[in-house]
Amino acid sequence: MILQNFGTAIRQLREKTGLSQEKFALSIDMDRTYYASVENGKRNISLKNIKKIADGLGVSLETLFQNLK
Amino acid sequence: MILQNFGTAIRQLREKTGLSQEKFALSIDMDRTYYASVENGKRNISLKNIKKIADGLGVSLETLFQNLK
Repeated sequence: MILQNFGTAIRQLREKTGLSQEKFALSIDMDRTYYASVENGKRNISLKNIKKIADGLGVSLETLFQNLK
Repeated sequence: MILQNFGTAIRQLREKTGLSQEKFALSIDMDRTYYASVENGKRNISLKNIKKIADGLGVSLETLFQNLK
């Protein structure tokens, strides 16, 4: 459940940036298919990669996990 | 840096519970030496295990990541 909720949260934030999955992944130097699988809640992502995504989205970790169960 | 900061944050919250590393790790069914290495900032912990620790500490992920860089 947490993986799906996290994926949904980053998708919403990424869509706000106006970037496609591919362009966003490229901007943070992350493999596009790996990033897509994280948005789809399919990956048990590590803390370093969570931080990389938060930085790319321009939000704090606290904001990223806001209201996230 | 994020791994060390995360380790420090969970150590402070775990100490507030009054439990030793060993007892806390046992309470969340996590290997004691693995948990100790996370507090020491030595492990790139996964989201599922981050959630397990937050649940064990009785805090939300948002609270866990509060002020965490």
